[in-house]
Amino acid sequence: MNVSSHAFPVLKVNIAGAENSADDLAVEEPLEIRLSFLTESGLPVIQPLSITMRTPAPGQDMELAAGFLLTEGIIQKKEDIQELLQVDEHIVLIQLTDSVIPDIHRLERHFYTSSSCGVCGKTSVDAVKTICPVFTSPGFLSVSLQVIYQLPHRIREMQNTFAATGGLHAAALFDGNGKLLLAREDVGRHNAVDKLIGAALLMNMLPLQQHILLLSGRASFELNQKATMAGLCFVCAIGAPSSLAVQLAAERQMTLIGFLRNERFNVYCGENRVLVEQYAANFY
Amino acid sequence: MNVSSHAFPVLKVNIAGAENSADDLAVEEPLEIRLSFLTESGLPVIQPLSITMRTPAPGQDMELAAGFLLTEGIIQKKEDIQELLQVDEHIVLIQLTDSVIPDIHRLERHFYTSSSCGVCGKTSVDAVKTICPVFTSPGFLSVSLQVIYQLPHRIREMQNTFAATGGLHAAALFDGNGKLLLAREDVGRHNAVDKLIGAALLMNMLPLQQHILLLSGRASFELNQKATMAGLCFVCAIGAPSSLAVQLAAERQMTLIGFLRNERFNVYCGENRVLVEQYAANFY
Repeated sequence: MNVSSHAFPVLKVNIAGAENSADDLAVEEPLEIRLSFLTESGLPVIQPLSITMRTPAPGQDMELAAGFLLTEGIIQKKEDIQELLQVDEHIVLIQLTDSVIPDIHRLERHFYTSSSCGVCGKTSVDAVKTICPVFTSPGFLSVSLQVIYQLPHRIREMQNTFAATGGLHAAALFDGNGKLLLAREDVGRHNAVDKLIGAALLMNMLPLQQHILLLSGRASFELNQKATMAGLCFVCAIGAPSSLAVQLAAERQMTLIGFLRNERFNVYCGENRVLVEQYAANFY
Repeated sequence: MNVSSHAFPVLKVNIAGAENSADDLAVEEPLEIRLSFLTESGLPVIQPLSITMRTPAPGQDMELAAGFLLTEGIIQKKEDIQELLQVDEHIVLIQLTDSVIPDIHRLERHFYTSSSCGVCGKTSVDAVKTICPVFTSPGFLSVSLQVIYQLPHRIREMQNTFAATGGLHAAALFDGNGKLLLAREDVGRHNAVDKLIGAALLMNMLPLQQHILLLSGRASFELNQKATMAGLCFVCAIGAPSSLAVQLAAERQMTLIGFLRNERFNVYCGENRVLVEQYAANFY
């Protein structure tokens, strides 16, 4: 069994019709990296260092933790690690050798947790629920196939910097009829979404319950979580969604579409907002 | 002038030869988001909230900051913001209205800075120099065109989960003759690199001064910075590099190759490690 991917039910839509099927998605789950060390005065300390959304694979959590410590400058060689311990499926503990005394101030600056992550081993989906979305009722949007098919063309028309550099992610906001309202680009896909939602906020457009968010790349948990905070209930990605993005969308009663390109797409949840009845003869 | 992209010199290589040219790259620069607010006891506080690597564009730093605050649950509506201020090109300050009292403990958990970012407005490239790379002398690797062309094929052969899901980034380690030694996949590209380097560390393979790192996606500053910490001096990406990735590679005397696909690639710096002499008649 490959724990790095997991089969999810999906509605596959193209011009010939739609069919219920299954789709393997990359698994995305939180991992907390904890550090155990002695302070200069000899006190033993256990400190959370990082929570990252990763794809689990046998043995690789310890590789990830060891690599993170080296590439972030906390250790310099293998011998700086006394023990590597998989505490549970969401926590790895690294015990430093006694002679390695990390800079505690720098460790604290390293510690990263987004709102999407629990600090105490909760799964992310549980943790995110502790943040009340500002706009709680999901929208009643209905979007036709033709509108959905057209979204990638619209975003490509505006993606000037991407065309020049091939290096930017884009996020775009449409109304329910497919009219492009706003688009933003960035090297970081979370930044593209934050810019877009920030612009909408400053223009008094929130909540975005009647709007469509299009992502030029993949749909991660973090991006979906940001979308829900702005009231969005209809998210389309040109690329693949992660497992946790689908799980969050299902819990929040969002519509999540992936692999939207070449006049086809997959609906992972919230099919009720996709108007497929017009092709009823060929559907299901 | 488009500040979101910037022209860089590049050596463009394909089977017909190589030529010096210029290439527009997406700009990647650090932005610090600072929050100004009153505590419950009425004390004014200014606190750094996040440092993110973003693509600058006129007016969009304030959108980014406003969106970040909303999507991370720190504000709930536009009226929670009293003032948005661009302090300088690397800092935005958001002043909350007096009635909005953020949870300071949660703010601290939000604050993220990786080793690649300065906390006090330094540019990232300056800040990263304060972390001594463990392995300071760049390697003397020489890699032939045929070896470079073959790297994407090798990584595709092993990318099982990507083939199934379309949702994973990969990082792979090769020797100078193009032999695949290690490969790791993850939904997060920084995790794929940390897993790979962690595995190499645990196998006593460091420093990786005679090795090639291949990235399945784009080359960001952060990924390049992680590579240098493991001693790598030869990084190839299937996608585009960012401006800051190229700047770091140049400072560290690394070889950075981008757009490696279909028997062509661009060399952004460190041409001396690419053996192009074999086609001398058609080169330059």
